[in-house]
Amino acid sequence: MTSWRKLKSCSRLYELAESPIDLSEEGVLTAKRIDSMLTEALGLKLFYATERVTDPVLQSLFELAEETKAIEQMEGMQAGKIVNFIHGYECENRPALHTAMRDFFENRNSSSEAAEASKLAYQELEKLKDFLYNIDSKQNFTDVVQIGIGGSDLGPQAIYLGLEAYHKTGRKVHFLSNVDPDDGAGIFRKINPKNTLFVIVSKSGSTLETRTNEYFVREFLAGEGIDPSQHMVAITGKGSPMDDPSKYSASFYIWDYIGGRYSATSMVGCFILAFALGMDRLIEFLRGANAMDKIALRKDYKTNLPLLSALLGIWNRNFLGLPTVAVIPYSQALSRFPAHLQQLDMESNGKRITKEGNPVDFDTSPIIWGEPGTNGQHSFFQMIHQGTTVVPLEIIGFKESQYREDVIYEGTSCQEKLLSNLFAQSLALAVGHKNENPNKFFPGNRPSRILFADRLDPYTMGALLSYYEHKVAFQGFIWGINSFDQEGVQLGKVLALKFLDLFLHAREGKGGESKEFSQGLAYFKHLM
Amino acid sequence: MTSWRKLKSCSRLYELAESPIDLSEEGVLTAKRIDSMLTEALGLKLFYATERVTDPVLQSLFELAEETKAIEQMEGMQAGKIVNFIHGYECENRPALHTAMRDFFENRNSSSEAAEASKLAYQELEKLKDFLYNIDSKQNFTDVVQIGIGGSDLGPQAIYLGLEAYHKTGRKVHFLSNVDPDDGAGIFRKINPKNTLFVIVSKSGSTLETRTNEYFVREFLAGEGIDPSQHMVAITGKGSPMDDPSKYSASFYIWDYIGGRYSATSMVGCFILAFALGMDRLIEFLRGANAMDKIALRKDYKTNLPLLSALLGIWNRNFLGLPTVAVIPYSQALSRFPAHLQQLDMESNGKRITKEGNPVDFDTSPIIWGEPGTNGQHSFFQMIHQGTTVVPLEIIGFKESQYREDVIYEGTSCQEKLLSNLFAQSLALAVGHKNENPNKFFPGNRPSRILFADRLDPYTMGALLSYYEHKVAFQGFIWGINSFDQEGVQLGKVLALKFLDLFLHAREGKGGESKEFSQGLAYFKHLM
Repeated sequence: MTSWRKLKSCSRLYELAESPIDLSEEGVLTAKRIDSMLTEALGLKLFYATERVTDPVLQSLFELAEETKAIEQMEGMQAGKIVNFIHGYECENRPALHTAMRDFFENRNSSSEAAEASKLAYQELEKLKDFLYNIDSKQNFTDVVQIGIGGSDLGPQAIYLGLEAYHKTGRKVHFLSNVDPDDGAGIFRKINPKNTLFVIVSKSGSTLETRTNEYFVREFLAGEGIDPSQHMVAITGKGSPMDDPSKYSASFYIWDYIGGRYSATSMVGCFILAFALGMDRLIEFLRGANAMDKIALRKDYKTNLPLLSALLGIWNRNFLGLPTVAVIPYSQALSRFPAHLQQLDMESNGKRITKEGNPVDFDTSPIIWGEPGTNGQHSFFQMIHQGTTVVPLEIIGFKESQYREDVIYEGTSCQEKLLSNLFAQSLALAVGHKNENPNKFFPGNRPSRILFADRLDPYTMGALLSYYEHKVAFQGFIWGINSFDQEGVQLGKVLALKFLDLFLHAREGKGGESKEFSQGLAYFKHLM
Repeated sequence: MTSWRKLKSCSRLYELAESPIDLSEEGVLTAKRIDSMLTEALGLKLFYATERVTDPVLQSLFELAEETKAIEQMEGMQAGKIVNFIHGYECENRPALHTAMRDFFENRNSSSEAAEASKLAYQELEKLKDFLYNIDSKQNFTDVVQIGIGGSDLGPQAIYLGLEAYHKTGRKVHFLSNVDPDDGAGIFRKINPKNTLFVIVSKSGSTLETRTNEYFVREFLAGEGIDPSQHMVAITGKGSPMDDPSKYSASFYIWDYIGGRYSATSMVGCFILAFALGMDRLIEFLRGANAMDKIALRKDYKTNLPLLSALLGIWNRNFLGLPTVAVIPYSQALSRFPAHLQQLDMESNGKRITKEGNPVDFDTSPIIWGEPGTNGQHSFFQMIHQGTTVVPLEIIGFKESQYREDVIYEGTSCQEKLLSNLFAQSLALAVGHKNENPNKFFPGNRPSRILFADRLDPYTMGALLSYYEHKVAFQGFIWGINSFDQEGVQLGKVLALKFLDLFLHAREGKGGESKEFSQGLAYFKHLM
């Protein structure tokens, strides 16, 4: 297989990257440029005039998508083809069918794998509806604690917070993820266990943190004289050790073709979202995600928002050489959305080999980070404007607020102030400012793009989630890497067991291996 | 002045960086190395055997500190010398005396500027004690809403959450920072205004977000029939527009020599911490910070923890060329501490000119980001282990938990599992793992260090805060930049006013400038 760097389109892009457009030059960022670099789908507008691209760059990026068969790979993924593999090596070897979790609406995917997965997912939604109806009429739970880590925590939590304005009154969800005992102990102080349902999420039923926290909760409930089986629900794979009616009041299923970081529209996210928002709003959320799934299949690159965004990211990462991306939502509700994207992107694409098993000779996942605006402006934006490492921004904004409560102060509303800042940052980063005082000099020519919608409602939240899932998947397809496994987390797990053995030895005199583990003993000697 | 890159020590360090030590090589990371690369002060241990340094590198780094007079600059800062300046240009031209905010204990700074600042700070603490005593006996506030942004939000919030285990029962602090109206509207739903005190924080009394949110709160209180003057406290500069007894039940002062990101031990942090923790624990927190201030003056580089950490960071940033730093606290309580450090570091050192006004020819502040462990392991650690951009880690850990509530599950406690993971990550990143399956191959040789203490109590929280404040200040001193201003945030403010003018024009037909602002009009045409 040809080296990625030597693809025809890549060669051209490396050439173009030798003299990219300078956004800070007089006459570059014109109203005409802004008019021409904007695309829209489902009410989401992608504004990219402030990226360092030109028509020839875009054309070559589209050719890159063509050369790497990006759309065909997306079609294959959504149809249930095996996309999670490394050719010639032991690997997970399975499809990634998260799009099937929400494919109940128009233009359903007709591939038998995808259709079967959708049917199973819909059965779980029906079960969920009945379950919530039953507990609402009987047990009156006010609080849910979701126990899970990684994708069982970050995505669901980001969406739960993102839609807080739409929650049913008096319902609260807590997230217990960390094996740090203070995480659990802190939550136990905030709930009344009599009114609390615990949702344990682990596909395999074997995640160390989750099993341990489940045990911690069971001990807590026992201490409060509460029967755990009436207060616990399992979200797990069928037949896993957690699929046990004697221990849980219900089991909801997920499947091996749903990766943790892609699981927010499976029961992993749906349970708590249905509890907090009600079924109707949950369905709206799924509808938004499904609609964006269809956009991701569009062959017209300019209106395929996730693909266009993926390509702009590849331009910044591989051709302009920028190591990070800051996601800045001008929306306090999206305060934890960057943390979800951090996992989604870095765990999917933080890889060093291609699907053919060869080391990559180009950069893969950038470092994804971010905080809401305007807050970030009063924190790290100094560095974004005047630091020595250029940080491309992905700005997210909404025309209207969620609560629609606002005040006019000095002639404008809070929302207008928020949006003025959003627009101003994108413009300031691009054009910069010349000044004789070198400390007031802004180099400009720093790229950003804006994803903009009318309002962050359940439908838009779903579309936004799916937009990023597909942006990440497209980048993986174009790079030719496997975005659906995570072998890089294994070594730490293996070594953690060796340290646990030292603790066990220290505690009980058991554990025979520890003598050989000189590094571990040195850590222990000094730190324990 | 000599170019920084040409300092004798830097030249040597650039040479050494051509063939840095490889931690993944057999026989490098030995118990002996671990024994020798560990230092301790105030019960905080800095473990750096897993950094890519050798004795010659350390020696040259110490020479760099010597050549740039790092300790003398720190002494000058703590004594109240003017450190916030750019030579020959209009600038803030003032001291940075945050260390004086906690210098009430042993070995007080005797410089008259610093001593005077400490005296004033102590007066505010006395006022605070009386004020809290009075409201406790009269008004019985259960909730406080701190209204402020940047340093008035991030540092105080990180510490408030960090010490939640030590809070007085039934006290809660909310943080209203964002001009997004949903931030305020969401908080209004969570409080009972009758039992809530609002603390408005702005040194100048003119921060747009804070003024707007204050107005939003006043409208809210008026709607609830509550007299705002009995429910509002100002934390501001003496004589600022907010220093007005007719509008607030009290004013507490800060001074122009306290930068926002260094203000957590001034009234900006102390008010809410005293409310939540009580005065005694607040004093313990200040005592810890003060003790670390003294450590930062040590001329023995190996036990000057903040300086040593600063130098290791400079090695990674300037000589190994690593663009980011991930701060990973293995402590759920420190979940927002990385967000504070993001501001502290990137706003202080995200600069492009030296204090002489010359453009830098080397990199300044890296991008600081992070999430708690073990959570991060289930999120972005895939990329940390196998991605193409190396990310140095600053790991923070504690031997004991805060609540001391734990369970033994499968032979070990939660805390032991947490620490096993912490140790394992540091080791795994350093040594890597060879495997014939390229997807299970870990290159290793990825640097990290561990800051480790017995327990995250108020004293240790203070020491940790100060450790990072001085790490950042030392890096600024060594780079020869001004770490205490933030001119890079001004351009965005200016352009935001132009967009606000467009909104005003659209709303009221006022605003004459907008016609000329063609870029702004193009944003408006498409997004509004």
